[in-house]
Amino acid sequence: MKLLKEKIEKEGEVLSDVVLKVDSFLNHQIDPFLMKEIGDEFAKRYSDQIITKVLTIESSGIAPATFLGLTLGAPVVFARKRKSLTLTDNLYTSKVHSFTKNETNEISVSQKFITADDNVVIIDDFLANGEALKGLIDIVNQAGATIIGAGIVIEKGFQQGGKALREQGLRIESLANIKSLANGKVEFYD
Amino acid sequence: MKLLKEKIEKEGEVLSDVVLKVDSFLNHQIDPFLMKEIGDEFAKRYSDQIITKVLTIESSGIAPATFLGLTLGAPVVFARKRKSLTLTDNLYTSKVHSFTKNETNEISVSQKFITADDNVVIIDDFLANGEALKGLIDIVNQAGATIIGAGIVIEKGFQQGGKALREQGLRIESLANIKSLANGKVEFYD
Repeated sequence: MKLLKEKIEKEGEVLSDVVLKVDSFLNHQIDPFLMKEIGDEFAKRYSDQIITKVLTIESSGIAPATFLGLTLGAPVVFARKRKSLTLTDNLYTSKVHSFTKNETNEISVSQKFITADDNVVIIDDFLANGEALKGLIDIVNQAGATIIGAGIVIEKGFQQGGKALREQGLRIESLANIKSLANGKVEFYD
Repeated sequence: MKLLKEKIEKEGEVLSDVVLKVDSFLNHQIDPFLMKEIGDEFAKRYSDQIITKVLTIESSGIAPATFLGLTLGAPVVFARKRKSLTLTDNLYTSKVHSFTKNETNEISVSQKFITADDNVVIIDDFLANGEALKGLIDIVNQAGATIIGAGIVIEKGFQQGGKALREQGLRIESLANIKSLANGKVEFYD
């Protein structure tokens, strides 16, 4: 996605060979127009499928997932990283290790909001080792729902998450796939 | 806002005299169409003002804030409740006590994203005791920016946050203002 790649090139900060900071438009400050374009692009890529639910994880997945949901006319569910006092239903839970934050979180989704009848697309901001995506897939599987595929804003293609999940048959649509962050420079796959 | 009040009446669960659960369209599952209407309504109510930035707090404020930002053509910033490894800039921070979760969090916003030139509207999902809103106001004040006002999806008008902040001169636009949750029933102010 050209607009996204240009934004990454212009505003992304390469903090190391593995860390790209995009907090000016995705992870802290949000560019609403870009988020809308991203949601529309996911909708276009999955326009061959019938999708009944968009699943994401708080917080940075919410904006692109909501625009996708608006275009599809489908509800969006965001998995919680922390327990809520008013979220005490029967929950699907899964453990997710974050290498960036160096901690393991239990993520949860209320059983009410994903059912066996659902066709789910999973949206996330980044795909690196695939830990968050695997946790969300685990939750969809617990619900007995159908996984249509995943939509990723930025994939770090030089890490192994995307490769491993594609080999297991998962459809992944990445809007920007990064080949390398070496020497402080962002290089994309074509 | 009629559409929102109808949704609350239809899907809101009154868990006690003070707790309303709206996780089917705002706090866990998101209704994207309703969020767009909410964003548009905030834009309409503040159409007499020039707004350069929308400030909210993760996670439930993000969807309505993003639609407001899209309509205004203004960036959205969401305050973080937890520290990020890639969010290590100079931060504005404030302490926020959550009565619902019974804990105090330090919220933070990167100093890059709110400056003295900004005219800020603060968006949040709920206003009850006003703790989150006060924390966000504190951050805007630290930045030396101008606070145009707040936009609240659901105000619990029977609690004291909104009243106290209005008395201090804050403009608050609430789209649904709840008078009472007694006897398991949602009653709105007119």
